[in-house]
Amino acid sequence: MTSIAAEDEPPPLGSLLLDEIHEQPEALARLLGHAQEYARAGEALRRRAPAVVRMAAHGSSDNAASYGVYAFGLLPGWTAIRDSISLSVYYGAELDLRDSCAIGLSQSGRTPDVVEYVERARARGALTVAITNDPTSALADAAEIVLPLAAGLERSVAATKTYTTQVAALALLAANAAGAGPAYEDGIRETASLVAGMLPGLERRLPEIALAFAYVGRLFAIGRGPEFATAREIALKLLETCRVAAEPLTATDLAHGPVAAIDPLFPVWAVVSDSVGLPAVLDAAARARALGARLVASGTLADSVPGAAYSLPVPAPPQPLLAPLLSVVPGQLLAWSLAQAKGLDPDAPAGLSKVTLAR
Amino acid sequence: MTSIAAEDEPPPLGSLLLDEIHEQPEALARLLGHAQEYARAGEALRRRAPAVVRMAAHGSSDNAASYGVYAFGLLPGWTAIRDSISLSVYYGAELDLRDSCAIGLSQSGRTPDVVEYVERARARGALTVAITNDPTSALADAAEIVLPLAAGLERSVAATKTYTTQVAALALLAANAAGAGPAYEDGIRETASLVAGMLPGLERRLPEIALAFAYVGRLFAIGRGPEFATAREIALKLLETCRVAAEPLTATDLAHGPVAAIDPLFPVWAVVSDSVGLPAVLDAAARARALGARLVASGTLADSVPGAAYSLPVPAPPQPLLAPLLSVVPGQLLAWSLAQAKGLDPDAPAGLSKVTLAR
Repeated sequence: MTSIAAEDEPPPLGSLLLDEIHEQPEALARLLGHAQEYARAGEALRRRAPAVVRMAAHGSSDNAASYGVYAFGLLPGWTAIRDSISLSVYYGAELDLRDSCAIGLSQSGRTPDVVEYVERARARGALTVAITNDPTSALADAAEIVLPLAAGLERSVAATKTYTTQVAALALLAANAAGAGPAYEDGIRETASLVAGMLPGLERRLPEIALAFAYVGRLFAIGRGPEFATAREIALKLLETCRVAAEPLTATDLAHGPVAAIDPLFPVWAVVSDSVGLPAVLDAAARARALGARLVASGTLADSVPGAAYSLPVPAPPQPLLAPLLSVVPGQLLAWSLAQAKGLDPDAPAGLSKVTLAR
Repeated sequence: MTSIAAEDEPPPLGSLLLDEIHEQPEALARLLGHAQEYARAGEALRRRAPAVVRMAAHGSSDNAASYGVYAFGLLPGWTAIRDSISLSVYYGAELDLRDSCAIGLSQSGRTPDVVEYVERARARGALTVAITNDPTSALADAAEIVLPLAAGLERSVAATKTYTTQVAALALLAANAAGAGPAYEDGIRETASLVAGMLPGLERRLPEIALAFAYVGRLFAIGRGPEFATAREIALKLLETCRVAAEPLTATDLAHGPVAAIDPLFPVWAVVSDSVGLPAVLDAAARARALGARLVASGTLADSVPGAAYSLPVPAPPQPLLAPLLSVVPGQLLAWSLAQAKGLDPDAPAGLSKVTLAR
């Protein structure tokens, strides 16, 4: 009889989100099935040698674009920006884009102003690229080069596997533009295994932390360099699934004002994975701790943050630039676990739908 | 005897901040005393015709840089970005900057990584500009062109007059680069008078709003286009002086996730000053209101936001692009007034100093 009752019960809140967090290693493997397309696109970018790589995106895709700034800056040494969509699409700025590459990032490929941004960029002479989970979407139609995420259908409103595949896609594209495609292809494959390996251990630790966070209403997530994208994405997960007013800041930004708002009910999540970012993050974390904030640390160097109440280290990937594929996962899992603790459904947060049509 | 007691009393909390808010029209007038320098700098930029205008700044100066993206984008039609300081200074990215103009913005001119950013940009071939309140500072030494803010000594830790003069400085520089310097010079002069004229009326209304906000712990500030800078600056003022977890978002960003966190204790401040930005801000405001959020509106079109609990309209400046000089003022005043209501000292928030040396 219990088995019949169990069948009648709705699935537990957040089961889509949890499944998709677990599916990330496979999603990354599927992305690598398109490595040839990324290699050709990287070659096309290299021939163009763009003065500016412009990325247009919203939400989690825009967080992945924060990563792209570093992937293009550090691999081919190009200036890459999270471009202002509204400047072109709504304010009609007449920019000369003949020396630009414009990349639209959208899981659904249906975000209206990202599609329009790419159409306009193409008309103004940019080399256009669509990175999307739907290669038959309007975004794909608008761009000259289409790069699939191949993450598989994402059903939870909160993006996870489409975020990490976007990060990997930008790493792979930038690496190919720098002539380092094969090494990064191997690196992403190995990193996917590391993600799979660390999930069970992380999952066991999260409920305890979620309990401690059940009454947290505000949080800062700090990071530097490639891990600023991770800080942004962790903050967005906590905002949209757990109703925590989580604001992402660079470690330096924290010192320039927001630190004054910290108190013991205002935890700080520090993401740190490389020695370059470490001093600023340690400095910011120490200031926050002096003001009574509880610290959570993730990233490959999480154990280097003194006084962290919770340290969630992740293994080091073959290339340091791939660390964000790992360090975001503790944040995804905490969002799921904290939503459970609060009785919220992270698969369908109030006021959100999977495809955002807001302009 | 009362007069002696009064002399012994410390000045009321926040008197520096309030004085400096009031001093903004004079500060803008002093900036215009340097119009010739801005005209020459605009001409130098025009000769260079930069592929990218890169702005490097932190805190309020970085908020002014958000405005610069639109000033350069809409006036000379140039791509201007808030550049990643850490990518160059800490991660050592080897970007080709020969087609770039690099602008360092710092009130004190002593922010270490902004100075280092400009030094590196100059060494890599960029045309370098310092916009600073101290033309004898290290930042001024590092740059080829020095543009003074002439805001006068700013003593409150929370920046006000140095923010608005930076916004005006970027407008004036971009206008000169577009051959429209004199019109904007007149426009800024007229806008300064409008600021002076609206202050008394605004000040009378603020205590009532501050009282209603006394227990607010979190807030979203939304804006689009040139007014996104205003949303960022209002959020920063509330964070640093009133300990409100205030996060700035573009109107579209709000729909891409954060809207799910809204509840009746989570007000939304909407800044709207032009018809291009209006539909997105109205749409975002309506979603927020449907979830129970209380709305505050500022900007020239503040009265167009239906259902706003508090509307703080400002007069329209001669050029729409100058609206941010006006629409930030209600936020500055609310920060002062709310700090009073909470018994906090906005002139010296905990954990902050006037010159931030954090890297």
